[in-house]
Amino acid sequence: MIAKQIILSSRPSGFPSINNFSEISIELPQLLTGEVLLQGVFYSVDPYMRGRMNNTESYISPFEINEPISGGVVAKVVASNATSLLPGDFVIGMLPWQTHMVVDANAVKKIDTHIAPASYYLGILGMPGLTAYFGLIDIGQPKVGETVVVSGAAGAVGVVVGQIAKIMGCKVIGIAGGTEKITILKNEFHFDEVIDYKNTVNINKAIQMACPNGIDIYFDNVGGEISDAVIRQINYSARIVLCGQIALYNDHTTPIGPRLQPILLTKSALMQGFIISNYANRFSEGITQLSEWLKDGKLQYKETILHGFHQLPEAFIGLFVGKNLGKMIVEA
Amino acid sequence: MIAKQIILSSRPSGFPSINNFSEISIELPQLLTGEVLLQGVFYSVDPYMRGRMNNTESYISPFEINEPISGGVVAKVVASNATSLLPGDFVIGMLPWQTHMVVDANAVKKIDTHIAPASYYLGILGMPGLTAYFGLIDIGQPKVGETVVVSGAAGAVGVVVGQIAKIMGCKVIGIAGGTEKITILKNEFHFDEVIDYKNTVNINKAIQMACPNGIDIYFDNVGGEISDAVIRQINYSARIVLCGQIALYNDHTTPIGPRLQPILLTKSALMQGFIISNYANRFSEGITQLSEWLKDGKLQYKETILHGFHQLPEAFIGLFVGKNLGKMIVEA
Repeated sequence: MIAKQIILSSRPSGFPSINNFSEISIELPQLLTGEVLLQGVFYSVDPYMRGRMNNTESYISPFEINEPISGGVVAKVVASNATSLLPGDFVIGMLPWQTHMVVDANAVKKIDTHIAPASYYLGILGMPGLTAYFGLIDIGQPKVGETVVVSGAAGAVGVVVGQIAKIMGCKVIGIAGGTEKITILKNEFHFDEVIDYKNTVNINKAIQMACPNGIDIYFDNVGGEISDAVIRQINYSARIVLCGQIALYNDHTTPIGPRLQPILLTKSALMQGFIISNYANRFSEGITQLSEWLKDGKLQYKETILHGFHQLPEAFIGLFVGKNLGKMIVEA
Repeated sequence: MIAKQIILSSRPSGFPSINNFSEISIELPQLLTGEVLLQGVFYSVDPYMRGRMNNTESYISPFEINEPISGGVVAKVVASNATSLLPGDFVIGMLPWQTHMVVDANAVKKIDTHIAPASYYLGILGMPGLTAYFGLIDIGQPKVGETVVVSGAAGAVGVVVGQIAKIMGCKVIGIAGGTEKITILKNEFHFDEVIDYKNTVNINKAIQMACPNGIDIYFDNVGGEISDAVIRQINYSARIVLCGQIALYNDHTTPIGPRLQPILLTKSALMQGFIISNYANRFSEGITQLSEWLKDGKLQYKETILHGFHQLPEAFIGLFVGKNLGKMIVEA
């Protein structure tokens, strides 16, 4: 059987471009015992994947040139040589960007599409949802009445962070770019205040106006100058949750900015980086809680879905120019 | 009775100078009920006091112009109108830089000079010792076999941090300036490796050589470029304890440096600022443990003592050019 595959044909220097990717055809192997043939249904594109396109050591190994990109994929079982999975089952796994693939049945996990639509397992019930949950609850330690600022607020993680912070009784300020995002954060996700950094002349002042009592928790998805402005206004004992630095991912050189140690010291503040795999042994706790909030209508959820397998590179590149509202997904 | 007093006559701009201080004579009031007349014996000078000389809001209020500097002082009771203290008792408190002073007996705490010499209560059994203890134990969370780097290693806090880290079974690397300090850190305090930043051309490489397994804990007393070099080499899950930033205290403008968020994120690392008063309700735990280690000979202690009340400004200024080895104290 022939499958289409998207490979990394060259490493991006700075912003990724469509020319860094190629689509090729490959012949799939026969199914061995314990293996399944999968058809990709939903493909996740995430900012962290940019890091894997550099040939540098990190918490996750780099993509290889002329090898397929891989990431979170929801797939449907087409044929099975394994007892654990039947044709028609939906599964999730870290899988290559291919229209079809042959994998060991143990490399994927069956998902329950009665609890939530299959695509949700790439978003609110998947990595972004769990990232929001553990980052905010475990590192941020929100308390009733505290002020929480979220950057990248309209992204896959940001919209969940803001809503959980509201559930915890906090005042929530979202920073995002563009009128459409701002309107939705305010009207559909019920953020208390929103700041459109693309249409704000003085971001320091905008934050000050939105946070008259200072900032107790900053959930940072973006880094760069937006973060500088937020961190300048943290309270004593503030917690800064470092989740992403999308503003910096395409930098060639070491980015420079104001030194943060003096303010962290003066404010007895904490800054903690994390990746979601640190919490692997608590995923079921997170999924249970998020499912419950979803069922109770306490969490709203948004996806930006592009249609067509070939759109994957476009969708990925779109992350860095803010094309997504909520979780960005490609449906094959 | 006439006492001498040292006042802040003007606010330093950048490095403090002798001209920012004046010595004046004042008439002490009569003792009221509950008050004691004290004679200053040992005066502490500490880097954090530089911050109080600026007219800016911080965790502690600024010194006022033409008012006395105050800080940690060990004093002897000369006369008492309080039942809790007798002439001859030694006390410690946050007291003005005066040769003599009249204070409420409740504003000072009696110390036991049988456990340790009186001056130790300004150092290893006082703020610097407790800062080392809680910063390393509570924030650093040292584990056997980990690598700990301490900057400002020959300072009042640094020498204690290094020794506690050794007690905890860690490998300890100290960074300090000058041959004398380096020799003492190695020979008397038994640091595993020492780096003399004043005589090292490539600090990155020196750290790399000294820390072949990377850095698990960085106890930072200095900030600036030394810290940049250390932080570049932290391990996954590292803890950065922000205790001081003496390299930056005299800066006029916001200091600029490499952004740290990307590395903290990639390494799931923590950076936490603190001041010792955060641990006020655990001071007795710290003092008990430090006294025990002192008694058992597990902790060595060094003081740099200048003699003469009038030397206080000089001693304070000396902190910023590394004149002290261990705790800097003035004996009246």
